[in-house]
Amino acid sequence: MSKTEKLTQRLEKLKTNGMYRNDFYWTWDKSGDELEAIFAVADALRDLRERNISTRVFDSGLGISIFRDNSTRTRFSFASACNLLGLEVSDLDEKTSQIAHGETVRETANMVSFMADVIGIRDDMFIEEGHKYQKTFMDALDEGYEKGILEQRPTLVNLQCDVDHPTQSMADLLHVIHTFGGVENLKGKKVAMTWAYSPSYGKPLSVPQGIIGLFTRFGMEVTLAHPEGYEVMPEIEEIAKKNALASGGAYRKVTSMEEAFQGADIVYPKSWAPFKAMERRTQLYRAGDQAGISQLEKELLAQNAQHKDWTCSEEMMKRTKDGKALYMHCLPADITGLSCEAGEVDNSVFDRYIVPLYKQASYKPYIIAAMIFLSKVKDPVAALRRMEAEGRLRKAF
Amino acid sequence: MSKTEKLTQRLEKLKTNGMYRNDFYWTWDKSGDELEAIFAVADALRDLRERNISTRVFDSGLGISIFRDNSTRTRFSFASACNLLGLEVSDLDEKTSQIAHGETVRETANMVSFMADVIGIRDDMFIEEGHKYQKTFMDALDEGYEKGILEQRPTLVNLQCDVDHPTQSMADLLHVIHTFGGVENLKGKKVAMTWAYSPSYGKPLSVPQGIIGLFTRFGMEVTLAHPEGYEVMPEIEEIAKKNALASGGAYRKVTSMEEAFQGADIVYPKSWAPFKAMERRTQLYRAGDQAGISQLEKELLAQNAQHKDWTCSEEMMKRTKDGKALYMHCLPADITGLSCEAGEVDNSVFDRYIVPLYKQASYKPYIIAAMIFLSKVKDPVAALRRMEAEGRLRKAF
Amino acid sequence: MSKTEKLTQRLEKLKTNGMYRNDFYWTWDKSGDELEAIFAVADALRDLRERNISTRVFDSGLGISIFRDNSTRTRFSFASACNLLGLEVSDLDEKTSQIAHGETVRETANMVSFMADVIGIRDDMFIEEGHKYQKTFMDALDEGYEKGILEQRPTLVNLQCDVDHPTQSMADLLHVIHTFGGVENLKGKKVAMTWAYSPSYGKPLSVPQGIIGLFTRFGMEVTLAHPEGYEVMPEIEEIAKKNALASGGAYRKVTSMEEAFQGADIVYPKSWAPFKAMERRTQLYRAGDQAGISQLEKELLAQNAQHKDWTCSEEMMKRTKDGKALYMHCLPADITGLSCEAGEVDNSVFDRYIVPLYKQASYKPYIIAAMIFLSKVKDPVAALRRMEAEGRLRKAF
Repeated sequence: MSKTEKLTQRLEKLKTNGMYRNDFYWTWDKSGDELEAIFAVADALRDLRERNISTRVFDSGLGISIFRDNSTRTRFSFASACNLLGLEVSDLDEKTSQIAHGETVRETANMVSFMADVIGIRDDMFIEEGHKYQKTFMDALDEGYEKGILEQRPTLVNLQCDVDHPTQSMADLLHVIHTFGGVENLKGKKVAMTWAYSPSYGKPLSVPQGIIGLFTRFGMEVTLAHPEGYEVMPEIEEIAKKNALASGGAYRKVTSMEEAFQGADIVYPKSWAPFKAMERRTQLYRAGDQAGISQLEKELLAQNAQHKDWTCSEEMMKRTKDGKALYMHCLPADITGLSCEAGEVDNSVFDRYIVPLYKQASYKPYIIAAMIFLSKVKDPVAALRRMEAEGRLRKAF
Repeated sequence: MSKTEKLTQRLEKLKTNGMYRNDFYWTWDKSGDELEAIFAVADALRDLRERNISTRVFDSGLGISIFRDNSTRTRFSFASACNLLGLEVSDLDEKTSQIAHGETVRETANMVSFMADVIGIRDDMFIEEGHKYQKTFMDALDEGYEKGILEQRPTLVNLQCDVDHPTQSMADLLHVIHTFGGVENLKGKKVAMTWAYSPSYGKPLSVPQGIIGLFTRFGMEVTLAHPEGYEVMPEIEEIAKKNALASGGAYRKVTSMEEAFQGADIVYPKSWAPFKAMERRTQLYRAGDQAGISQLEKELLAQNAQHKDWTCSEEMMKRTKDGKALYMHCLPADITGLSCEAGEVDNSVFDRYIVPLYKQASYKPYIIAAMIFLSKVKDPVAALRRMEAEGRLRKAF
Repeated sequence: MSKTEKLTQRLEKLKTNGMYRNDFYWTWDKSGDELEAIFAVADALRDLRERNISTRVFDSGLGISIFRDNSTRTRFSFASACNLLGLEVSDLDEKTSQIAHGETVRETANMVSFMADVIGIRDDMFIEEGHKYQKTFMDALDEGYEKGILEQRPTLVNLQCDVDHPTQSMADLLHVIHTFGGVENLKGKKVAMTWAYSPSYGKPLSVPQGIIGLFTRFGMEVTLAHPEGYEVMPEIEEIAKKNALASGGAYRKVTSMEEAFQGADIVYPKSWAPFKAMERRTQLYRAGDQAGISQLEKELLAQNAQHKDWTCSEEMMKRTKDGKALYMHCLPADITGLSCEAGEVDNSVFDRYIVPLYKQASYKPYIIAAMIFLSKVKDPVAALRRMEAEGRLRKAF
C-alpha cells in the first residue's frame, strides 16, 4: 500500500467538511480533525510529487498574494503551493497606506478577485490591524459572492497576521511530528518557546503566539519564557491554557531562559517585540507621529540590550534533554558571530542544526497546499485516490 | 439549450473574420458585428467558467503586459483574462524615459515578443503619445513577423491610451446591456457623461472619449457635459456625432451638469483634465521643464476648484429618471466624505450603487479575454462549441 | 521527414548523458557533442513550436530567476523558455548587499528551491564574485538534495556571470550556423571580436570572453582586438588558444580594430571594461569606498574617451570580407547619432543589420529551453519523438 493510500485512509476517518469553502485564519478555529487532515494531505501531496505524480486540481485559476511586509520564504512557499495545484500567482503590490480604510479594502478585495480561487495575505506589522485587514477583506468577498459580483468565493490562507502565523506553526509541527516519529509520540514532550536577544526590534509576536496556541493541543508540555515586559497577547495565553487542559499537556510561563531549556525536548528561541510596545507603535503610526516612533524604537533597542544573556548558546543547549533538544527557528535567525555580533543563537549551534532547520522550512509549501486543497476540494479522499490512480506525470519525460 | 449555445448561435450570424490576427486599438475601428461578437464571447466565456468548464485555448504561451502608468484593476483584469485562456503573464517593467525613441520601441517590441501571443499596453499619460507608442510597438512586430524574427505576430489589446479605453468602455456597455435587459433595449436611453470635480488633477480623457465614442453607436441619447475649458479631443466628438446619426441616437454637449442629469437613465460623472492642458503637459515633459509642470499643476488645481458644484450629490441624482439613474464609474472614485473632503460623488450615492459598480468592473476580465479569443481563434463558433462539448473541468475535483 | 526528426537523428548520435541533472556554468565545461546537442534541441523545439506542437515537459513546476543586474532581454528569454516547457517563473528580487555572505546564500538557495526545477542566475557585476555566487548557490542545493531537504535538485542555467555568458554566446553561434548554412561551413571563417567605444563604462567582460571561448571550438579564426589596457581574463585567452589548436582554427590578439576587421566574415564590436579595473572596482565595493568608485568611474570614462576611433563605422565595415561581414551585437548597442553622440556603431550600419540582429536575439529563448531540456529529460531523443508523434496542440483552436 502506498504512503498516499495510507494517509488517505487516515484522512477518511477525519471530519473535514467544515473546511470546504472555508478560510484559514487561526489554528484555534480549527478542530483537531481538521489540523490532522492538513498534515495528512500535506504528506500525501509531498509523496505524490516525489513519485512524479501530478497534483493539479486546477486547469487555470489565480492565487492572489498580498504581502504587506517583505517576505522571501513565505512568498516562495505560497508560489510553490499554488503552482503545485495548478494556480498562477498574481501579486498585489500595495504601495498605499499601511492602515487602510475599510471602504478601500472592500473595493480592492472585489477588484482583484474576479477570477481568484485563493487569497494569501501577510499583514503582521500592526497589532490590532493585521487580522482586522484580513477579516475586512474576506467579509467584502462574502458580500461580493452573495451579490453575484464574484462567480466564486476565494478562500483565505493567512500567511501571517498580528495574532497567528498558522502556515509557520503547522509546518513547524509537521516537522516535529516527523522528527519524533508520529503525532502519537508528542504526549509529554517538553517545548521551550523562548524569547531571545536580537539587535533588531519589532519582530512580530505571531510566531510565539502561533506556537503556544498550537503545540498545546497535542499533549505537550509547553513553556513560554521571556524577560518581563515581553508579554504576548493575554487572550492567546488563555487559549494555550485551555488547550493544555483539554489535551492532557501543560502550559506555563517563566521569566528565565535557563528554566525553560531545562530538560526540554524542543527549543524555539526567537526574538519578538513586547505586545504593549506594539500597541503603542500602532497608535503612533495611526497618528503619523514619526518622532514618537523613533523614540519608541530607541527605547525598545535599549530594553532588548538588557537581555543579551537570552541567547541560545552551547551552554544553554546543554541544559536540554541529553543536550540534544531539537532546535527550531522560523528563519532567518540572527546568528552570533555570523550575521551579527550578538544575536539569538550561537553560530556553532545554528550550524549543527542547519539540516533540520531547512527541513522544518520545507514543509511550509505543502502545508499551504493542503490548506488550499481542503478548502477547495469537496471530496479530498476521492481526489487523492483519483490523482494516484490516474497517475498523470508531473514531468512527462 | 445552454446559455453558451444561445450566444454561439448569435455569434454565428456575425461577421468576425476581420478580428482574426488583428489588433484592438479603438472601438470605432470595429464594426457593429465585431463589437457584438465581443459581448457574445465575453458572456459565453463567463457562462462556461461559471459551469466549471475550462476555456483554455493555449497549452503554453505568454501575454506581455506593459503598464506605463500605475494600475490595479486593469492589471488584474489582464492577468485574469490571460490565465483564463492559458497564457502566462510576463510584465515588462519599464523604468526608462516616458517618451521613448521610435528605434528603442522597435527593439524592445521584438525582444519581448519571441514567444508572446498577446501584448497589453497601457499608456494614457501623454496626449499624442499613448496611441503613438502602441502603434510604433505593433508596427515593429509586423516587421518582425514579416522578416521571420518572430514565429507568430502577437496581437494588441489596448489597455488604455490617450484616445480610447476600449476594455473599460466595452465592459461598461456590457454592464448597461445586462442592466437594461439586452442591447435591443438601449435605443433612446439617455446617458449623461459628465465631468465632476476631483481634488486631484490630470486624470486621463480616455474614459469620457471612450464612452461617447462607443455609447453613441447603440441608439442612445448621449450628452457630454463639462465646464468650459474641459474640452475633449474634437475628433472624438466628431466620431460621436457620426455614430449617433448612423444609429438613430443623439449626441449633444452642454456646460451644465444639471442639464445633463435631467431625466437621464444612466449617469457617468467623472473627473478629467482639459485636453489643451494635457497637450501643454506633454510638451513640458518633452522639454524636461519641471518648473513649468509644477506651475501647470497649480493652475489646473485652481481651475478645478472653481467647479466644486460639479458633483454627483443626492440632489443631482434626483434630477435623473425617477431619481434612479444607473450610476457608473470606472473606479476608484473620489468620494466626498470618505476618500476626500469634496469629490466626484456623495458617499451616500456611491454606497447605494456599490453592487452595480463592482458588477460593472467584473466584466473587464471577460471583455479582455473575448478580445484575445477573437484575435487568436480562427473559428470562434467551433471553438466555443468544442469547449462546451468536451467539457474539460477547470477545477478537476 | 520532418525537420524535428532530422534533428533528432543528429541528436541520437551525440553523447549527452553527462548533461542530465547537470548545471550549465561555462561552455568550455561542455563537450563538443553536448554543445551540438543544445543546438539540435533548440532548433527542434523551435520547429515544433512553429508547427503548433506543444513542447511541455512539465505539468507544473517552477523556474527561479535571480537577476542581480537589470535585464530585459535575458529576463524575457528565460521566462519564454520556462513557459515553453511548462514551468512557471518565480523571480527572487534580492535587494540585499551585492557581495553576499556564504551562509546567507546557502539558506536562500534552499528556501527558494523546494519546488524548483531550474535556477537561472545573472550576476555579472563583480569580477571574481559572479561565478562564485552561482557556485555557492548550487553547492548549497547539492547539500540540500543529499540531505533530503529538497525532493529534486534544480539545475542551473548561467544567465551571465563575470566569466561567461553562455546563453548569449550559444544563441550567437546558432545564428552564425544558420547564417552560414551549417556548422560544417564555419571552418576558416574569420571572426573579429573587438572592443568598441561607448560613453558608458563598466560593461561586463562576459560577452567577449564567452565569444572567444566558444567560437574557437569550431575551426574559426578568431581575432580579439582591443586598445591596450582593455585586457580580458588571461585564463579565458588560454582556453581560446587551446580550443583553436584542437579545432584547427586560430586565435590571435591585436591592438587595432582595422586589423581585426580586415577580411573578417563576422564582426562583433562591443564595449567592455578593463579586467584590472573591474578587479579594483570589486575591491572598492567590498570596502564600501564610494569616493574610490567615483574616482575609478571618472578615470575609466576618460580612458574610454581616448579610443573614440574604435567604432564600427561604414569605413570600418568596408575592410571586411566584400564589405559585407555579418555584424553582431548582444544588444542594446550604443548607436552613434541615435542613442548617443558617439558610440559603438554608426546608425547606418546598425540599421542595415537590424533584421539579422533581432534574429540573433531570437535564438536565446530556445537555447535556454534546450539547456533546461537536456538537463531535465533523461532520454531527449525519445522525448522529442513522442512530442512530435503525440502532436498535442499548443494553441488548441
